[in-house]
Amino acid sequence: MVPVLPFGLSFAGVRPGGLMRSLHRQLRAAILQERVPAGFLLPSTRRLAGALAISRNTVTNAYSLLVAEGHAAARRGAKLAVLPHAAPKATLAARTSRAHDARIVPAWRTSLPRMVYPPGMPARSFRTGVPEDRHFDHAAWRRLMSRSLRAMARAPFQYGPPVGLPELRAAIAGHVAFARAVVCGPDDLIVTSGAQQAFDFLARMLVVPGKTAVAFENPGFPPTRAAFLGAGARIVPVPLDAEGLRVDRIPDGVKVICVTPSHHQPTGAVMSAQRRRDLLTRARELRAVILEDDYDGEFLYDARPQDALQTLDQEGRVFYVGTFSKSLFPTLRKGFIVAPAWARDALVDIKRASDSHSDTLIQATLAAFIGDGHLARHIRRMRVVYSQRREGLVSALKAHADGWFDVIPGAAGLHLAARTRAAHEAKVIKAVNAHLPGALPLSTYAIGRPLINGVCIGYGCVETEQITRAVRDLGRALGAPRRA
Amino acid sequence: MVPVLPFGLSFAGVRPGGLMRSLHRQLRAAILQERVPAGFLLPSTRRLAGALAISRNTVTNAYSLLVAEGHAAARRGAKLAVLPHAAPKATLAARTSRAHDARIVPAWRTSLPRMVYPPGMPARSFRTGVPEDRHFDHAAWRRLMSRSLRAMARAPFQYGPPVGLPELRAAIAGHVAFARAVVCGPDDLIVTSGAQQAFDFLARMLVVPGKTAVAFENPGFPPTRAAFLGAGARIVPVPLDAEGLRVDRIPDGVKVICVTPSHHQPTGAVMSAQRRRDLLTRARELRAVILEDDYDGEFLYDARPQDALQTLDQEGRVFYVGTFSKSLFPTLRKGFIVAPAWARDALVDIKRASDSHSDTLIQATLAAFIGDGHLARHIRRMRVVYSQRREGLVSALKAHADGWFDVIPGAAGLHLAARTRAAHEAKVIKAVNAHLPGALPLSTYAIGRPLINGVCIGYGCVETEQITRAVRDLGRALGAPRRA
Repeated sequence: MVPVLPFGLSFAGVRPGGLMRSLHRQLRAAILQERVPAGFLLPSTRRLAGALAISRNTVTNAYSLLVAEGHAAARRGAKLAVLPHAAPKATLAARTSRAHDARIVPAWRTSLPRMVYPPGMPARSFRTGVPEDRHFDHAAWRRLMSRSLRAMARAPFQYGPPVGLPELRAAIAGHVAFARAVVCGPDDLIVTSGAQQAFDFLARMLVVPGKTAVAFENPGFPPTRAAFLGAGARIVPVPLDAEGLRVDRIPDGVKVICVTPSHHQPTGAVMSAQRRRDLLTRARELRAVILEDDYDGEFLYDARPQDALQTLDQEGRVFYVGTFSKSLFPTLRKGFIVAPAWARDALVDIKRASDSHSDTLIQATLAAFIGDGHLARHIRRMRVVYSQRREGLVSALKAHADGWFDVIPGAAGLHLAARTRAAHEAKVIKAVNAHLPGALPLSTYAIGRPLINGVCIGYGCVETEQITRAVRDLGRALGAPRRA
Repeated sequence: MVPVLPFGLSFAGVRPGGLMRSLHRQLRAAILQERVPAGFLLPSTRRLAGALAISRNTVTNAYSLLVAEGHAAARRGAKLAVLPHAAPKATLAARTSRAHDARIVPAWRTSLPRMVYPPGMPARSFRTGVPEDRHFDHAAWRRLMSRSLRAMARAPFQYGPPVGLPELRAAIAGHVAFARAVVCGPDDLIVTSGAQQAFDFLARMLVVPGKTAVAFENPGFPPTRAAFLGAGARIVPVPLDAEGLRVDRIPDGVKVICVTPSHHQPTGAVMSAQRRRDLLTRARELRAVILEDDYDGEFLYDARPQDALQTLDQEGRVFYVGTFSKSLFPTLRKGFIVAPAWARDALVDIKRASDSHSDTLIQATLAAFIGDGHLARHIRRMRVVYSQRREGLVSALKAHADGWFDVIPGAAGLHLAARTRAAHEAKVIKAVNAHLPGALPLSTYAIGRPLINGVCIGYGCVETEQITRAVRDLGRALGAPRRA
């Protein structure tokens, strides 16, 4: 440590000839990292040279470089003042194009499909998949977290099990068995960091790069595709109708089928019972596996919801992926895979190689939260809240924007989709962007040319009153529809 | 919900012809998941049929299947009692071999290299890489976690940035700049779920399956290799000498070089300044990148530690991987990559596709912990503790087991390694297993045939007194060495 500066300098391992360069880099880093404020006076060359036991010339040269780069300027005689820096924060941070960088494998040289929202979108918006925080029992969560922290303080540090804490797996098995009649025990589950990690693991386990054909709903959720594209999958888009995925359009050769049968992402359609059976039959013909994405399956508002594919499966063909991002909150980053026996060891190995295990503090807290009944209570409460919001949104669209939208049925989840006429689309999207921030055109979810015109509107974190007001403004902006 | 049973039954989507099978599966699942205890009396067929509004025959047939499978047996007339089940917990849970399962891609059909410890090892053991909990400021951590939880309760739910929270990246940049003179700003960092995820991401970005040759230290840390094997890398083992990696033995064609220069895992050797420069030169010749694993770089006990490779690199060739698993605790699951600009977008995309982002609650708490100076204080405190333990271990080996071990120099980290004569190895390993549980033979870390005989002993979570006692017992068990 050099007392003449408020940060340390190290010349360990630097050859005598490299001292100037090293000093310059360290000073520049300190300035760019704002370890000294703009206006800070650097020590005189004599003083710094003395403190570091290096030649004054070395310091002078390093200072000159800083001046040349615009990081410092002379003030009061020999002293230099640090200048405010606006543009690049650090030298390393300069962006370069990766498109032609042969060091990066092709799959990652371009951006993968993702959700892109306009900047400046309010936190409480109409984007999909963001749940309500105002009804969450933060106090209970905090209390259980404190309990986990106290337990942690009493035990030696150690690594956790890759498959997930036993108490959390038991709690999740109980939860999905009750909530979704999914047949599983704690040993059938792998805890993941959200559903995204679940799909990433499944992609890595199932996809031979450049070979394996994976069927996706079109339109469908871009981040799920991203995981498979990253693994080198061949993407096979499959359209939908009112009963869900057009199973008859899944071509031969497909080995993996990704679906959101409870509540299609993004249209909200619910897969019919017949279609579910057809899908299982088709998967058998293809010797394919089905990845059932039940991302908001806790919020099914029909009196008699359809069974999960996993419940109907008799052949170990279905992977059931669940998440607590919608039923609790997204930053929790906890999801799970209910996996058939043949795949479990491989998935645990992938988890171990990927990130060892998920953090145990939050796992323990979540286990207690489920075990103490808070999750079930929260879901019961939110089922009422979200279904009322859905009804409010449907009514408002009918009352204030009639003729512009055709709501796609599917009483479930935290979002709905509405078709719009192709001729109206540009006008509708513009008005939706202005009045329902976060709602997205269905084209965002399309693989290739969009098959459906319309918008997807989330109601997870906006209250019914806000929904009604926003749709009224939307309706005013649109006016009476011109029939195409 | 059926009040005659303490769990729910659902027949949604079940065809009338499938009722019996569905009832049987749901009852069996409930029994296997222990939602009813052994001895529990199932309701009479009449009562259950009435409650479910299905035919009594259906119930009788489902019950018969349960009896046939050994899940229930007749008691008191028509009533069936649930039988205790010993062997398989759930039908799904039966293990199957994955070795020949064509659905799983080849990389995951066999177990990857990993650390395997004998069962029943005490938590406070001589295994490597487990830090001390007894000097950790749990109260400060708890206080900051509470603060993060209160902040979370005030804000709407939302997803976090894949790259990591800005305040955490700023805190880490400041930390590594001070602790290791690593040149970086917040924008140069990607937050990961531990160092394991960092290597996993780097492997996925850099490895063309079946093609890319990756150099590893031999012996070296198996989990890092596992990440690269999972990505399909060709593993090129490179031996070490007293100065570290034998750079002259890195063959042409290698594109990625993984090293632990601060403190070689497992031998503890520190890479010399000259060897570091040679390595950078060799990487330039090969147009290769270097992955610098600084897993315990905060604990360098030399007065003048070597600069990190990242500090010496002028060409954007070095990825610096850090972790808080050793400097704080492993279940935190927080690490980071300081990445050159050309690779940053790809890494953020990989993070997004892998698991969206790391949990923000712990990120925010860690940022505050670093920002408030707790990390720096903890490291200062632990540096003294660990270096004393290291000295204690070295002295004890000299005092009580002289002639059996030849300690490999390298005053750093939470473990040391000692060579042993090939002729003695079996005897020494046996005694070490008995008296220093968790310490592992160096052969555990070997790629192929072991090049070094010896053991690796962790002292992260055992106090000096325990170390001395254990080594004294070890020495007694070994007796005087027979010179080979």
